Amino acid sequence: MAFDDAKGMQIAFEEAQKGYEEGGIPIGAALVAEDGTVLGRGHNMRFQKGSATLHGETSCLENAGRLNGKVYKNCTMYTTLSPCPMCTGACLLYGIKRVVMGENTNFVGAEEWLKHEGVELVNLDHQGCKDLMKKFIDERPEDWNEDIGEE
Amino acid sequence: MAFDDAKGMQIAFEEAQKGYEEGGIPIGAALVAEDGTVLGRGHNMRFQKGSATLHGETSCLENAGRLNGKVYKNCTMYTTLSPCPMCTGACLLYGIKRVVMGENTNFVGAEEWLKHEGVELVNLDHQGCKDLMKKFIDERPEDWNEDIGEE
Repeated sequence: MAFDDAKGMQIAFEEAQKGYEEGGIPIGAALVAEDGTVLGRGHNMRFQKGSATLHGETSCLENAGRLNGKVYKNCTMYTTLSPCPMCTGACLLYGIKRVVMGENTNFVGAEEWLKHEGVELVNLDHQGCKDLMKKFIDERPEDWNEDIGEE
Repeated sequence: MAFDDAKGMQIAFEEAQKGYEEGGIPIGAALVAEDGTVLGRGHNMRFQKGSATLHGETSCLENAGRLNGKVYKNCTMYTTLSPCPMCTGACLLYGIKRVVMGENTNFVGAEEWLKHEGVELVNLDHQGCKDLMKKFIDERPEDWNEDIGEE
């Protein structure tokens, strides 16, 4: 690896922290090319923008802007939490081949679908990600449920 | 069916036409509750907003705004084109149980995954949807490839 996964996760984690400070859901993401170029970073914007589609990873992809399809192919998506089906599908749409997540203790997304499609999935089991997400879920369980489509 | 699928598709198709008239990618969608209430409608905004995540269905979900998870469960997502992985994942995230598409002649999305997850998938094989999409792809093949992450 030319780029250190811990560095990528640190960017995603900073995004998650920013989201928490803004009163939002603390999930962040970073899209990083093989040479370490950060193409995009972002965090969940459900509360900040009243958005039903700007999760950590989609927000990151949105901030990265319009890119040629080939740009994504050698990228890693760093995300603080196991990616939900929408964010999983977004990674698959763009052919992102590697997803590094901070943790899947607080939520397990569509990991099976990612693996089924041949995406390399790494779990860093990052204590900071786990603690921040647990804190949010404990504080605002209904807001968290809304974000994952639960009642 | 309390609500006529042809009516739902007509809304999605009007959205696609609006997108085309705006200089965008002509894919539209509508989220309709069981009683016929239109909760959201939208179209692809890649060119209008420089967006990498506002496809037809995600745009529709975004326009529907923040909703309690239970609201989605009895909805049908009408979309003019077979849903890409991201839009498939968005439907799965929110537990939308029924997807009606205009066509899958011009593009086949993640239909297998929708079926795998138990979503009812209907193809109306809508001539208007097929013609409009084909026209766009013929006119702007590179712009279409960008939207589906191809080189």
